[in-house]
Amino acid sequence: MTSRPVWMTDHGKPWHRGEGRVVYDNPWIRLTEFQATAPTGRPAQYGLVSFKHLAMAVLPIHADGTVELVGQSRLPFSDYSWEIPEGGGALEDDPLDSAKRELFEETGLSASRWQEILRVQLSNSVTDQLAIGYLATELEQVTTEPEGDGTEDIARVRVSFRELLGAVIDGHICDSLTVAMALKAYHMAREDALPRDLAAAMLG
Amino acid sequence: MTSRPVWMTDHGKPWHRGEGRVVYDNPWIRLTEFQATAPTGRPAQYGLVSFKHLAMAVLPIHADGTVELVGQSRLPFSDYSWEIPEGGGALEDDPLDSAKRELFEETGLSASRWQEILRVQLSNSVTDQLAIGYLATELEQVTTEPEGDGTEDIARVRVSFRELLGAVIDGHICDSLTVAMALKAYHMAREDALPRDLAAAMLG
Repeated sequence: MTSRPVWMTDHGKPWHRGEGRVVYDNPWIRLTEFQATAPTGRPAQYGLVSFKHLAMAVLPIHADGTVELVGQSRLPFSDYSWEIPEGGGALEDDPLDSAKRELFEETGLSASRWQEILRVQLSNSVTDQLAIGYLATELEQVTTEPEGDGTEDIARVRVSFRELLGAVIDGHICDSLTVAMALKAYHMAREDALPRDLAAAMLG
Repeated sequence: MTSRPVWMTDHGKPWHRGEGRVVYDNPWIRLTEFQATAPTGRPAQYGLVSFKHLAMAVLPIHADGTVELVGQSRLPFSDYSWEIPEGGGALEDDPLDSAKRELFEETGLSASRWQEILRVQLSNSVTDQLAIGYLATELEQVTTEPEGDGTEDIARVRVSFRELLGAVIDGHICDSLTVAMALKAYHMAREDALPRDLAAAMLG
């Protein structure tokens, strides 16, 4: 990793959180309301949603340039969403272990090669949710009947990377992590940051 | 927009929200706990964070391939974050009007050309936050002293698109919308989805 560019120097004052009151807590999130002070000095009631898990995302790519996607119902938008395998990893666990478990749980796959290719703050005005994305290659189908986590009714499909990218570009896939991971993998394939054969299979 | 690919057909059962109890409400978010039923039939207490604004993101690109970025402190991660101009748009407002206002408020710029290039669900396991991203070109500096919204202490910088992309790839920029928008613009430049001169200036 390169050092931070000079133009990225911090400017301006920080937020001050002030006193906090926990208003909600479940196994996934905690909501705290702070009597905060903005960088401009203005008082601001700030409802912060803290996440108790990392968001893990795995883009599993086969040597032939196909990828494994999962489909599931999502409560927040009352819709059906096709995505790369994703799930929560306990903050105290090794993120890579969580990613491996999530991939296996949702697809029955294991991978011999893992590479972190994304680390993003998903919604940094209201939440502290951090997401880590891995590229998983050299895949092996350990079981064809993965068990899920007990709440998920997961469908699976194997399509070409081009089809995934097409569905992202056309807006049919709109999960932000899937979008970012597909576009990052495209960038890597285009900029010689992947093995040549794999890049050719993905872009071909 | 193309029609949805056949492999994206909905599978499996939906979530049922069940009875909901509002546990928190402020001008930005509402948290509701549902006695939900998962697609597998399992009961699940579900804390849903509903957003009262769209997340607007604007990638402003000058004809010379430079972009305008803004820096600010963020409370949730207690950090300083460089991002493309972003902000909230009221759900009842035209998203494009909100994007124009946000660009002006944070940078003092107006743009003659606007193109929606991204529409994503930021964190669809817990929130219903929808983000819309615009490419803004043919820029004009209306004022060099924008006023912000009263809580933001915003720094501005103009760097090449290549520098933005480099900071994204190196992980120095980790706001998910900025990451996705930069990678989407790269894809457009590479795939002839932008005016040739602009693409050349961005990639050069």
